[in-house]
Amino acid sequence: MEFTPKFDQQGLIPAIVQDANTKQVLMLAYMNAESLKKTLETRQTWFWSRSRKELWNKGATSGNTQQVVEMFYDCDSDTLLVLVNPAGPACHTGKTTCFHNPLLEQDFIMERRNEN
Amino acid sequence: MEFTPKFDQQGLIPAIVQDANTKQVLMLAYMNAESLKKTLETRQTWFWSRSRKELWNKGATSGNTQQVVEMFYDCDSDTLLVLVNPAGPACHTGKTTCFHNPLLEQDFIMERRNEN
Repeated sequence: MEFTPKFDQQGLIPAIVQDANTKQVLMLAYMNAESLKKTLETRQTWFWSRSRKELWNKGATSGNTQQVVEMFYDCDSDTLLVLVNPAGPACHTGKTTCFHNPLLEQDFIMERRNEN
Repeated sequence: MEFTPKFDQQGLIPAIVQDANTKQVLMLAYMNAESLKKTLETRQTWFWSRSRKELWNKGATSGNTQQVVEMFYDCDSDTLLVLVNPAGPACHTGKTTCFHNPLLEQDFIMERRNEN
């Protein structure tokens, strides 16, 4: 079956990265056509860094690369799910996952109050 | 700790929905400020439908609601992770997860050939 990724207006598609063993969701990053191609070819995660505006081989500098085990696309072809074996923490803070901040209702209410 | 969600230029933030028990990633959808507030208040998932341009209480029509168990935000506050107990399949196709299509290298290569 052929896959036509639906890139957004910036030519990007969001990619959810999940640990293939623990099933922990590690991070969300964005791929353009070239980083998707490199990910498929090298079986390591490649993204497009929106802040640095450059291709980004995850772990190239830190050593915390992510070996791709499986990839899926969703029912409307606009999101990727990448199952990986990570060589180290996903987050630049040194935590295993970028999703290490619990969100409580009060957090958001306080924030909205600050906006007023 | 206060949370300042970084909404994108359309006022949206991507939300990864994961089954709290099986740890399967179910879907990715987008929240605006109002749907995030409603999600926190009702403990059910609410999104902004980019195609229908309206607030969307997941499962309101299908019955396949998602009860929120935990929520996290990531290290740069621009993505949410929502752990849920789903009342039924997440995907409109009736599959448990929207990510039911395996992506093989050949798929993408074929697609790129078609573009030429």
